[in-house]
Amino acid sequence: MRLPSVAVNLSGKRFVVTYSIAASTIEDANKRAVDLALEQTVEFPADLTPAGDITDHIVGRIESIEAQNEKFLVRISYAEETVGAETTQFLNVVFGNSSIQPGIRVEEFELSESMKALRGPRFGRNGLRKYLNAPTRPMLCTAIKPMGYGPKELAKLAYQFALGGIDIIKDDHGLADQNFSTYNERLERCADAVAEANLKTGYKSIFMPNVSTHAGLLLERAQFAKQKGAGGLLVCPGLVGWDTMRMLADDDALGLPIMSHPALIGSFTTSKDSGMSHYAVYGQMARLFGADATVFPSWGGRFSFSKEECASIVRGTEVELGQMATIFPTPGGGMTMEKIPDMRSVYGNEVIYLIGGGLHRHSDDLVANCHYFREFVEGMA
Amino acid sequence: MRLPSVAVNLSGKRFVVTYSIAASTIEDANKRAVDLALEQTVEFPADLTPAGDITDHIVGRIESIEAQNEKFLVRISYAEETVGAETTQFLNVVFGNSSIQPGIRVEEFELSESMKALRGPRFGRNGLRKYLNAPTRPMLCTAIKPMGYGPKELAKLAYQFALGGIDIIKDDHGLADQNFSTYNERLERCADAVAEANLKTGYKSIFMPNVSTHAGLLLERAQFAKQKGAGGLLVCPGLVGWDTMRMLADDDALGLPIMSHPALIGSFTTSKDSGMSHYAVYGQMARLFGADATVFPSWGGRFSFSKEECASIVRGTEVELGQMATIFPTPGGGMTMEKIPDMRSVYGNEVIYLIGGGLHRHSDDLVANCHYFREFVEGMA
Repeated sequence: MRLPSVAVNLSGKRFVVTYSIAASTIEDANKRAVDLALEQTVEFPADLTPAGDITDHIVGRIESIEAQNEKFLVRISYAEETVGAETTQFLNVVFGNSSIQPGIRVEEFELSESMKALRGPRFGRNGLRKYLNAPTRPMLCTAIKPMGYGPKELAKLAYQFALGGIDIIKDDHGLADQNFSTYNERLERCADAVAEANLKTGYKSIFMPNVSTHAGLLLERAQFAKQKGAGGLLVCPGLVGWDTMRMLADDDALGLPIMSHPALIGSFTTSKDSGMSHYAVYGQMARLFGADATVFPSWGGRFSFSKEECASIVRGTEVELGQMATIFPTPGGGMTMEKIPDMRSVYGNEVIYLIGGGLHRHSDDLVANCHYFREFVEGMA
Repeated sequence: MRLPSVAVNLSGKRFVVTYSIAASTIEDANKRAVDLALEQTVEFPADLTPAGDITDHIVGRIESIEAQNEKFLVRISYAEETVGAETTQFLNVVFGNSSIQPGIRVEEFELSESMKALRGPRFGRNGLRKYLNAPTRPMLCTAIKPMGYGPKELAKLAYQFALGGIDIIKDDHGLADQNFSTYNERLERCADAVAEANLKTGYKSIFMPNVSTHAGLLLERAQFAKQKGAGGLLVCPGLVGWDTMRMLADDDALGLPIMSHPALIGSFTTSKDSGMSHYAVYGQMARLFGADATVFPSWGGRFSFSKEECASIVRGTEVELGQMATIFPTPGGGMTMEKIPDMRSVYGNEVIYLIGGGLHRHSDDLVANCHYFREFVEGMA
C-alpha cells in the first residue's frame, strides 16, 4: 500500500551530482537513473512512496541524461534538506548505497546554497604560500622513512631535508605509533630537528606528523603536534573517516594546514565504470573535507593514474566550489627530479612536488640532493 | 645510496594477508608481490632500503604464490610491530597504498598473536540472541522510512513494526539530522513507541538509530541514544571511519549492540580484480571493527552480489578470528518474504532478515504483515 502523503518544508534549493551510468540504451540508462534517485533518498519502491512532496521533491530528480563514450552522463539533483548540515550525510546522499552498484560512477558534484557556507580548507593555496613563505614557486615535500627506523634516525633525515630546503617534511604515511618509532618521540625529535635547521637556513620548513589513528585518540595527537611545534598535519581520510579530517581543519585552536593522503581510498578509482572519478575524490572531496594539499600518485611512477586523470585532479583542486579556497595538488608515488619537466606541463607552479625515495638517489649527499631539487624547481618557476 | 642499517626489536610474530594479483605469468606475479610487500611497509626502493632487520623483517615477506583462476593468490606476512596497537594502522598495512593499484585484491587476513587480544564485537551472535530473547530462530529487522517523513510518522511506523514482532527496528541509513526529521526528536519518539509496543506484546523489540554523523558529534549522539532508550546503534563505517565504529563498540558506558551499514564502502567490491573481497569487507572487517550484525545486499534483490559472494560473507562472520565472537549476517537490499526459503539455503538460522519496502506490500495491514513475516520465519526455523 502506498504510504500516506505528508507536506515537507523545503527551500527549493538543490545540489547536483553527475554520475556516469553503464547502460546499453538510453531507456536502460533512464531506468537505472530512476532507481539511483530512489536508492539515494527514500530507498523505497516508487509505487509505495508517498505521493506529493516526497515523490516530487525528496526523491532525487533526473535533470538530464546524455550519451557519452558508450556510457550515459546523468545529472541528478537532490533537495539540500536531504543533507542538512552534515558532511557525512552529503556523502551518503551522493553515493552511499549506490557505491555498491557496479556501473555507477560519481563524476562530479555541485554544492547548493547552504552548503556553500562550508569552510573547506583553512589555508588553501594562498594561505599555504604565505605560511611557507613561498609566494609563487612550486613547493617541495618529502617523507621521512623507512618504517623500522627509530625517531633518532628519522629526525636526522628530517634535519637533512630541512637543511636542503624542503618545505614540507612529513611522516611517511606508514609511520604510526610503533614500538620502534613512537608517535610522541618521533614528533618531538623531528619538529626540533626541523626548527634547528631553519635557524641555520633561514627557510621556513615544517614537520608534518601523521595523526591518523584511533577515533578517540586522534584529536589528542593533533593537539600534541601543535604543542610540540609541528607545522601541519598529515591525515589519511580513508583510515580515519572523511569528516575527521574536516574536524581537524575546522579546529581553530589547532589552526594547522592539512595534507590528505590516499591510503585506503584507492578503491574509489580502480574501476573505470564504478566508484568515483579522480576529479571528485582527490580534487573535490579532499577540498570539501578540509585538506590544503591533496596527495595522489602522479603518472609515470609506481601507480597507474594517467596524465589526463592527474590533470582532472588539478581541475578539482581549483574549480569553483562554494566559497572554498583552491588547494595544492601534491603528486607523488615514485616521482624523481628527472620527471619534473614533464610534470610541469600539467601542474605549472601551483603544485607541491612530493619526492620520496628519488631524493636519495641523485648523489650520496642528501642535503646536496635537496638543494639541487629546490634549485632545479626554482629555476623552472 | 642505501640507507644505514639499524637493529629493530621484533617479536617474530607476523600476520598474513592473502591478496589475489592479476598477472600474466608467475614471474610477473612475483614481481608485483615484491613491489606490494615494499609498498605496504617501507614504501622505499629495495636497493635503497637498509639491509638487515628492515629488509629482512619489516618489509612484507612473500610466504607463497599460487596460480588460481587466471590470477595468483599471494600470501604476504608482516611483522605485527608494523601495526602496533592501532586498528587504523592495520588497515594501512593491509591495503593502504595498494588500494590504489588495479589488479590487487585483498581476499582474506589472519591476525597475529597480539592482535588477537582485540575485543571485536561486544555481543556477537550469542550475546545478541540473549539480548533480544531469541535463542535459536532467525531474527527480523526492518527500517523506518522514507526520507521526508517526520518523527511522528516514523514513530507510528516503528510502533506498528514492534507490535508485529520485528526484533530490530532501525533508522533507514538515509535518516540523519534533517529539518523534517531531527535526530533527537525522531529517536525519542521511536524509542518510546517501541517501548510502548513491547509492553503490549511482551516481545523485546529494539529501536536502533543511525548515529553516523560528524566526527565531533557522534559519541554525543550515541550517548543520547543510550539515555533515551535506544536498544542499539546503526553505524556506517564508510561515512564515519572504521575505527569510529570500533570506538563505539568498545565503549563500556554505552554497551549497546552495533549494526554496520555498507554506505560508501561499496567501491571495495565493485571490481572483480581490485579492492577487497566480500568475505573480507562485510565479514572480517565488520567484525574486527566491532559490528554485531553486518548489513549487506543479498542476491536476487536490487544489487548484484551473487549467492556465492553472500555465502562467503557468512563464512567471514563466523571464521576463527582471534578470540572474536561470531556475528550476524544481515542480508537486505530488496528482500521479500517470498525470497526467504531460498535465502534459508545459505543463511540457515544464524541470520537477521532485513526487509524494508517488501514488508509494506504483503497486505494493507502493516502489523499483520509483520506478524506473518515473524510466523513465517519461526515456522521454518
